[in-house]
Amino acid sequence: MLLLRHCRGLTRVGLLKTQRVQLLHGAVLPVAVCAGSLCARWGSSHGGHESGQYQRRNGPNWRHALAGLLAGTGAVLAYGLHHSQTDLAATTIVQPIAPASSLPIYTQDEVTKHRSVEEGVWVTYKGSVYDITEFVSMHPGGDKILLAAGGALEPFWALYAVHSQDHVLEILSEYKVGELSAEDRRKQQSVKSTDPYSTDPERHPALRINSLKPFNAEPPPEILSDNYITPSAIFFKRNHLPVPQVDPKSYRLQVEGLPGGAPLRLSLEELKTRFPKHTITATLQCAGNRRSEMNKVKQVKGLNWGIAAISNATWSGARLKDVLLAAGYRPEVARQTSHVQFEGLDSDVTGTTYGASIPLNKAVSEEGDVLLAYQMNGEDLPADHGYPVRVVVPGTVGARNVKWLGKIIVSEEESSSHWQQNDYKGFSPATDWDTVDFKSAPAIQELPIQSAITQPAEGAVVERSAEEVTVKGYAWSGGGREVVRVDVSLDGGRTWQVAQLLSSEKGQVPAPSPPPGRAWAWKLWELTAPLPPAAQELEIVCKAVDNSYNMQPDSVAPIWNLRGVLSNAWHRVKVTVKEDEGEQRLL
Amino acid sequence: MLLLRHCRGLTRVGLLKTQRVQLLHGAVLPVAVCAGSLCARWGSSHGGHESGQYQRRNGPNWRHALAGLLAGTGAVLAYGLHHSQTDLAATTIVQPIAPASSLPIYTQDEVTKHRSVEEGVWVTYKGSVYDITEFVSMHPGGDKILLAAGGALEPFWALYAVHSQDHVLEILSEYKVGELSAEDRRKQQSVKSTDPYSTDPERHPALRINSLKPFNAEPPPEILSDNYITPSAIFFKRNHLPVPQVDPKSYRLQVEGLPGGAPLRLSLEELKTRFPKHTITATLQCAGNRRSEMNKVKQVKGLNWGIAAISNATWSGARLKDVLLAAGYRPEVARQTSHVQFEGLDSDVTGTTYGASIPLNKAVSEEGDVLLAYQMNGEDLPADHGYPVRVVVPGTVGARNVKWLGKIIVSEEESSSHWQQNDYKGFSPATDWDTVDFKSAPAIQELPIQSAITQPAEGAVVERSAEEVTVKGYAWSGGGREVVRVDVSLDGGRTWQVAQLLSSEKGQVPAPSPPPGRAWAWKLWELTAPLPPAAQELEIVCKAVDNSYNMQPDSVAPIWNLRGVLSNAWHRVKVTVKEDEGEQRLL
Repeated sequence: MLLLRHCRGLTRVGLLKTQRVQLLHGAVLPVAVCAGSLCARWGSSHGGHESGQYQRRNGPNWRHALAGLLAGTGAVLAYGLHHSQTDLAATTIVQPIAPASSLPIYTQDEVTKHRSVEEGVWVTYKGSVYDITEFVSMHPGGDKILLAAGGALEPFWALYAVHSQDHVLEILSEYKVGELSAEDRRKQQSVKSTDPYSTDPERHPALRINSLKPFNAEPPPEILSDNYITPSAIFFKRNHLPVPQVDPKSYRLQVEGLPGGAPLRLSLEELKTRFPKHTITATLQCAGNRRSEMNKVKQVKGLNWGIAAISNATWSGARLKDVLLAAGYRPEVARQTSHVQFEGLDSDVTGTTYGASIPLNKAVSEEGDVLLAYQMNGEDLPADHGYPVRVVVPGTVGARNVKWLGKIIVSEEESSSHWQQNDYKGFSPATDWDTVDFKSAPAIQELPIQSAITQPAEGAVVERSAEEVTVKGYAWSGGGREVVRVDVSLDGGRTWQVAQLLSSEKGQVPAPSPPPGRAWAWKLWELTAPLPPAAQELEIVCKAVDNSYNMQPDSVAPIWNLRGVLSNAWHRVKVTVKEDEGEQRLL
Repeated sequence: MLLLRHCRGLTRVGLLKTQRVQLLHGAVLPVAVCAGSLCARWGSSHGGHESGQYQRRNGPNWRHALAGLLAGTGAVLAYGLHHSQTDLAATTIVQPIAPASSLPIYTQDEVTKHRSVEEGVWVTYKGSVYDITEFVSMHPGGDKILLAAGGALEPFWALYAVHSQDHVLEILSEYKVGELSAEDRRKQQSVKSTDPYSTDPERHPALRINSLKPFNAEPPPEILSDNYITPSAIFFKRNHLPVPQVDPKSYRLQVEGLPGGAPLRLSLEELKTRFPKHTITATLQCAGNRRSEMNKVKQVKGLNWGIAAISNATWSGARLKDVLLAAGYRPEVARQTSHVQFEGLDSDVTGTTYGASIPLNKAVSEEGDVLLAYQMNGEDLPADHGYPVRVVVPGTVGARNVKWLGKIIVSEEESSSHWQQNDYKGFSPATDWDTVDFKSAPAIQELPIQSAITQPAEGAVVERSAEEVTVKGYAWSGGGREVVRVDVSLDGGRTWQVAQLLSSEKGQVPAPSPPPGRAWAWKLWELTAPLPPAAQELEIVCKAVDNSYNMQPDSVAPIWNLRGVLSNAWHRVKVTVKEDEGEQRLL
């Protein structure tokens, strides 16, 4: 009767399933619902990946959504459910709806017996008992839900604040089967549910927060382009999990997986003293940078990043190549292995750590410049950026620049982590959550050509009397491809002017052109142009070109993808030209 | 009075100059004309580079153009002059217009005395004598015109057939100063002017010829995508000069410029036996592929290539890396040098050979796969493809894959050749021949993501009764970036479907995915989709994505550039859906 199927991560089964639905009047009837849509509705995050898609304030509730599913409009509602990006930490936890009345009382011992799909999966939440057996296969986070089986949900939900939304609690309420005994409730309350984010560091107040837990924030664009080297405090932050507390004294970096080599364990001191210190200037960019523009075309899943999930810093550390050589790497290894996996020390309650991998050839290349960095902008790495050691993979998407690095594994396989396998991949605009096959797309490594306008801001007013307008922004490309030109248009893309490129702080001597394939740092750019005489509004557009002559696509819709990654269409900003009051306008 | 300035190659001075103009009634008066525009008018090719821009059939003549210049419409006319792409070899040579009447008779000895700007520059053409002193600085081909000084133009024009156009002869006629003596005319006629292209090989009749001398041709698109490996006979041909006749017995490849290393001279046999034979499958593409689409936006200079200046072959030869090692290359060399220059054995009458260079790191990289190829598709290189040895620089623009390779020079500098310095570079659509600074843009090396539809053809008719339409094409990206997806739209880009990628001949087992950064070969692709029910016309569009997730730009105008290179916008083909006669159309 119940066709339980797995619904892992962001993948969707897309098959009809039977689902017990407890309607308002208490009757229970089986109805066919789309498991995939349920996944999408509740969200699909687990293991701490982008939690934004869970967040809403006034979206349709569970029953409305179900009605929609039954009516065949589930997909639309599914998008609606993830519409609003709000600061989750501020959301009040709503109590389950079902009354505590006629349901039986269970002891914790009885609950604990239900820890498998076979025996039933029970959990408790705020003193109530839920039989979520039927929901297990629909849990967007996959099997991890079983870790809570037989116990309380609170410590898990504390980790993944995404659960603290009305519609999640509404879904939960459908599965209520009883109340926890008064004695066990008291016991639970005495075990203080600790907030794993309580030790996260202080952050700069200028940051625009997209998610507090885990912490994700970007600087205001106009500040971003003020500095060629982004100050660490306002460098965009993109955490997937709580910031781990790492004792530099006891820290050990493990290196393993090299055929014929013995595992290596390095203290921080050894990393700093055994290997030459190498410094690069490299821009990091989140795959989700500029996602908000995709959201305007059609809702995607993910944090609603503006244009500033990108920053530029100097990084110093040991070359990964040197460390791998010390661990026994020889060129023959490349015949047996193809990837270098990284594990962070940031983990969820199950002990699953953040993980990613890069191709071995990038890791061992003399020109790849991959660092095990212990300094950012000349100082110890800040806690938010991976203290004491992070990987810096220049030219490569932020997600592979693993922070709080704990382990390096040379392997035949890519990282098996969720973030490598089922996230951070690009798809056709035709691909939706019903049809997506994450195996069909490569994990994002090098990023495409990108640029954006940091000044003026959307909706800004330019005085006619100023006679000219100054446009500023950044441009960068992945894979070490140097930005060679930025074109700027004041008329929506009909005519273009070439901006001035800056490869250092303004006023300083520009850095010499980097060797081919090693242009890791962005270029800031600037254009001051006369105000077009007749224009009442300017649609300012920028597009960059790298030295492989790759260009940005013109528009967002044709590159839209369900995860909202790789948003690199021309950036457009509309500003108003204000005629001077009391003056005759001369055209 | 005469402000003589150099007008080299494709650069334009853009300053006003005085120019003697002999009007129809014989009066001579100085008028201000734009030297730059004159350069553009006559064309700007020299040293054998793309001759297409010289070709016209019914363009405005010299006087019309001059009138246009005086009226400030020079730019428009300049474009018009280069509008028509015709088969130059078929153009009849027109006799100079000026009558032979009252002008003085000169002997060849007298003509020969005028070989410099100081002494005057005289030339003869078909028995007439011309004083072209004032034209020297305006010659689009630069100083090379001085090589003809004091002698006959015929052997030079035989090399650069681009001169054989009415308007060129009209310009020449303005400079006529006399007639050659009867005796010297007879002497000249006895020296048979040989056609340097007379030894060019036979070509496949299916090729669509863009220029006969030098030979430039592409296969019909529908044949191109029939074969994953393009047969050599229909592989696109792009020669800059006559095909040189190379004797394999006496052939020697010179390698020089390595600090500390002795120059190396290798026979063909040594190249084949001293170094391991390495085979790759690599796609070559001309920078001008799909230029015809840019021409539709606004006229550009260059051969009017369709979508088939791209082909895929297997190439076998010695690795350049191995040869450089044999010549004394050591990693320290990379600190003193940055480029590897190639010189072809194809040359013009001045002895100037075709030349290009690539970055040293590409040349010596284990993963760069740069070959000194002596085989194409398993056989000796055909004459048109560089027999006996050519460079194959996979992932890099065709122009750097130097054919008939004579010399390799490791150097601090890029090749100083015209094609490296003043051609094969990309510019903003805002840049025109008045403002272009060739030093401001990097020489094209890696090419951007590309795809095109080979079937159906533009204007094709699809029968409604067929119920579905099959779309085929190719996709490729430079720099070894693998094509990971091709999206196809039947409605002009509003909705998309994902095409099937083919990485081998159809029906064969697909080749395994290449190592990262070494995807040198294209992918063919195919999509069979139901005919949209209501559509009377389909606008079929394709766009490809590579594994750096670079996408093609949507439209041509924003990437338009004055040389018409790097034309990689979405490819669009319109086809008509024909309703079946006598049948009721059901919607």
